[in-house]
Amino acid sequence: MIVYHISGCGVCNDCRRGYMISCTSARYRRAYGWQRDGGMAEFMLAEEKDLIWLPGELSYADGAQVACGFGTVYEGLEKIGISGNDSVLITGLGPVGLATAALCRKLGAPLIIGIDKIPERMALARDLGLCDEVIASADDNVEQVRKLTGGFGVERAVDCSAHDAARATAIRATRKWGRIVFLGEGGRVEFNPSPDLIHDQKTVFGSWVTSTWLMEELVEKLVRWNLHPAELVTHRFPLDRVAEAYSLMASGRCGKVAVCFDEELK
Amino acid sequence: MIVYHISGCGVCNDCRRGYMISCTSARYRRAYGWQRDGGMAEFMLAEEKDLIWLPGELSYADGAQVACGFGTVYEGLEKIGISGNDSVLITGLGPVGLATAALCRKLGAPLIIGIDKIPERMALARDLGLCDEVIASADDNVEQVRKLTGGFGVERAVDCSAHDAARATAIRATRKWGRIVFLGEGGRVEFNPSPDLIHDQKTVFGSWVTSTWLMEELVEKLVRWNLHPAELVTHRFPLDRVAEAYSLMASGRCGKVAVCFDEELK
Amino acid sequence: MIVYHISGCGVCNDCRRGYMISCTSARYRRAYGWQRDGGMAEFMLAEEKDLIWLPGELSYADGAQVACGFGTVYEGLEKIGISGNDSVLITGLGPVGLATAALCRKLGAPLIIGIDKIPERMALARDLGLCDEVIASADDNVEQVRKLTGGFGVERAVDCSAHDAARATAIRATRKWGRIVFLGEGGRVEFNPSPDLIHDQKTVFGSWVTSTWLMEELVEKLVRWNLHPAELVTHRFPLDRVAEAYSLMASGRCGKVAVCFDEELK
Amino acid sequence: MIVYHISGCGVCNDCRRGYMISCTSARYRRAYGWQRDGGMAEFMLAEEKDLIWLPGELSYADGAQVACGFGTVYEGLEKIGISGNDSVLITGLGPVGLATAALCRKLGAPLIIGIDKIPERMALARDLGLCDEVIASADDNVEQVRKLTGGFGVERAVDCSAHDAARATAIRATRKWGRIVFLGEGGRVEFNPSPDLIHDQKTVFGSWVTSTWLMEELVEKLVRWNLHPAELVTHRFPLDRVAEAYSLMASGRCGKVAVCFDEELK
Repeated sequence: MIVYHISGCGVCNDCRRGYMISCTSARYRRAYGWQRDGGMAEFMLAEEKDLIWLPGELSYADGAQVACGFGTVYEGLEKIGISGNDSVLITGLGPVGLATAALCRKLGAPLIIGIDKIPERMALARDLGLCDEVIASADDNVEQVRKLTGGFGVERAVDCSAHDAARATAIRATRKWGRIVFLGEGGRVEFNPSPDLIHDQKTVFGSWVTSTWLMEELVEKLVRWNLHPAELVTHRFPLDRVAEAYSLMASGRCGKVAVCFDEELK
Repeated sequence: MIVYHISGCGVCNDCRRGYMISCTSARYRRAYGWQRDGGMAEFMLAEEKDLIWLPGELSYADGAQVACGFGTVYEGLEKIGISGNDSVLITGLGPVGLATAALCRKLGAPLIIGIDKIPERMALARDLGLCDEVIASADDNVEQVRKLTGGFGVERAVDCSAHDAARATAIRATRKWGRIVFLGEGGRVEFNPSPDLIHDQKTVFGSWVTSTWLMEELVEKLVRWNLHPAELVTHRFPLDRVAEAYSLMASGRCGKVAVCFDEELK
Repeated sequence: MIVYHISGCGVCNDCRRGYMISCTSARYRRAYGWQRDGGMAEFMLAEEKDLIWLPGELSYADGAQVACGFGTVYEGLEKIGISGNDSVLITGLGPVGLATAALCRKLGAPLIIGIDKIPERMALARDLGLCDEVIASADDNVEQVRKLTGGFGVERAVDCSAHDAARATAIRATRKWGRIVFLGEGGRVEFNPSPDLIHDQKTVFGSWVTSTWLMEELVEKLVRWNLHPAELVTHRFPLDRVAEAYSLMASGRCGKVAVCFDEELK
Repeated sequence: MIVYHISGCGVCNDCRRGYMISCTSARYRRAYGWQRDGGMAEFMLAEEKDLIWLPGELSYADGAQVACGFGTVYEGLEKIGISGNDSVLITGLGPVGLATAALCRKLGAPLIIGIDKIPERMALARDLGLCDEVIASADDNVEQVRKLTGGFGVERAVDCSAHDAARATAIRATRKWGRIVFLGEGGRVEFNPSPDLIHDQKTVFGSWVTSTWLMEELVEKLVRWNLHPAELVTHRFPLDRVAEAYSLMASGRCGKVAVCFDEELK
């Protein structure tokens, strides 16, 4: 089973839509492993409605990345629409950015450009073949992206960095009539609506986590695509070394870090 | 006839879409009354493709407000979608904001809230029955709008002010899953994506002028709705007093200002 | 409380979307008053998740028409989009057709045309002011609708009749780029795709019942609009005369028929 | 240059949208090679507005298939949306059906199923790798398609056959919430709305040719995708053997048939 990481009341409008992340009940909204028991333990008690079937084709390490990783990304990508029509810019190549690249590839994107500044992440995006172009964070990123796209800019951009400048780059490097989605959490953004948004008829979407039903549909597709989220895992730790895992993750010098049980520790 | 105020090359992608405002030909893109002769004269020479039929039901003063007024607004409203489902917030009650209110009413909006700080504009919005609620620009505008909408915020917001703070208000006073469109030109905007956009799954659209074909469809609807843009005109001047007209408009202490020929001077 | 009339398993993809009507569990999918106890009784036992709050502004007779009446219609109307832009044709003026007219009015539709053949229903649509034009079912309905819409046809059509010919009329009387939704259950339809659908770039939607969350949103809007579904009720019966109620409904010579308790029997 | 095959008046609403195919001017609407000179000649006189730039990467035989072949298909596919999310059924594997398969592949579709009855066409779809599965037209096509899609049916279907039964198959073999587009011209269709469309919340689109601007965007993408429509050409004829070309095409026992000048006759 995969666990949708937030349990909601089940009867507010958000829960009825499947977005328990947005549950409006102060009493019942509880994240597993935070306001209620859940993560980093051998067993956990979960509500049936919070569970998604994990098909045999996927490992636990695959499934563990769906809830607040691939699922969150898929929601955002469905909002802006990604197909073979779209060159995509991804600002920020942490686990969410890498998941974005992996999903955009399967959705058909013929050109995927990533921006980051941490060498390990940039190398990973290249080595796993997730991005066609990886460029270092710099003041002239907009010009670089335009150069890589025949002068036009990308049709779609996804911010996974939460950095102010990267968000503005995502908007500015997007082509006329294009769409941008913000996934990265925190911080601020500042831009100039006339040249950046209005004159090119662009649209900026905010997107938060996903619904249980879209998460379930994503799982069906992961199998269909033979896409294994665990391929983004660069480091695995047993439960008793979890502190090391968090510390490595916080450094950013890695892909996805997984805490696994014996059978998936390799 | 109504004149679409920009003449384009006719064969670039933007012109083919009908958006001559975005014509990419440095040679052929020419605004009437700016880069080519046009406004504020008794006669003008225009391309057939830039003309929209003015039906007998509409006056010249009605038609003159379509191109870069009601048409621009209608494009933005079509992007975000307005119907009887939607309470609407309008930040900025100049001619574009008043046109927004007039069109939202005809599209079915049951509650229209306007924000401005110029007393003449606020009074006009109230007196013409265009806004149901008019509130003065202030730091607590978001709270005021929430209060007027059962605590939820509006389903749609339209910025016609181009002011940084008003744009942020438009975003923040919008309800979960809501849509915001920026029409006002110039300046900057700054906000906090997580609380302002991401967590409430909102979308911000940029919208610039409109196409010739949507402008034509708007004209058909103005007749159907019996909506006369000239009702927003508070002051009319003959051509030889055009300087006064511009000066009044610049003060902001008025509705729409029209320069008319004898028959429509009243 | 309002009861969503089908109880589902709660964990299949359709239930997670809120569409318990489409629950895929043979074991748990149960309509109240059909496969499980529910309708036409003084008390009933219902699952919390199947209940929608009935606000104080609405009566029980209002609420009783939401689940498989106004809710079903609202889902269809949201699929095709109705606003002040749209003239609407409704084929079939039974309770579903009348609810369509009532909702289209609140969504902003400036012209609502109804077609039926039962005089009582036609009179009701006119007398309640729900339709602007009511025409008798006939071979030349398409021409009549075009005549009422400046030769263009309607922007939107809703079939509430389930009759083959009326469905074809709904498609054919719709304007270029228009949308049609089929709500009426049963029967067949036959048409000629090239002239009827393809050349005019039209779209036909099927729509079935609705989700719990959209039903909840409709209830919020009924209050906002001051729209009382009970206004469509032409006849009220106490529980012990329920057979008469069904018999009258089957005749079609009425509006909505309600079975009520003392307080709402008038 | 590529010629959009219909010249319109340029100023009716349809022409302004770029859909000259739908030009409403009886006087100016003229197909090249039909109501005005154009096809099957060494030279032709065309309006500038009817021309699309043919990039150096594409041959004349590529370009000749854009206007009423790949362009028509692309319009339909954009209406229903095709990405890596979508298994696609194509009913009818003539040149339009093969173009559909080629474009769906580039848009990301992971599974493409074709239905036809002419052995040459079925073999072509297989040999060119355009369809993943090719099945012979038969009474149990719906069951076959469901079997190939885990029991669900396809997310998208495109009718390129214009046959009544194939159109019904396209609708019936489509999954819940799926979309179908009709491209094939002529004939009729008959189906049962409740099981075929309503209960599964499906949508049927009609789509006719395309606009000049979308055709132009397609050309940009053909280059980006390195997709050469001429690969569908199985037979080439010089201008003086044009009768043979038409006769072969009418037999259906071929892919696309091209009439070429020396340089592209091979």
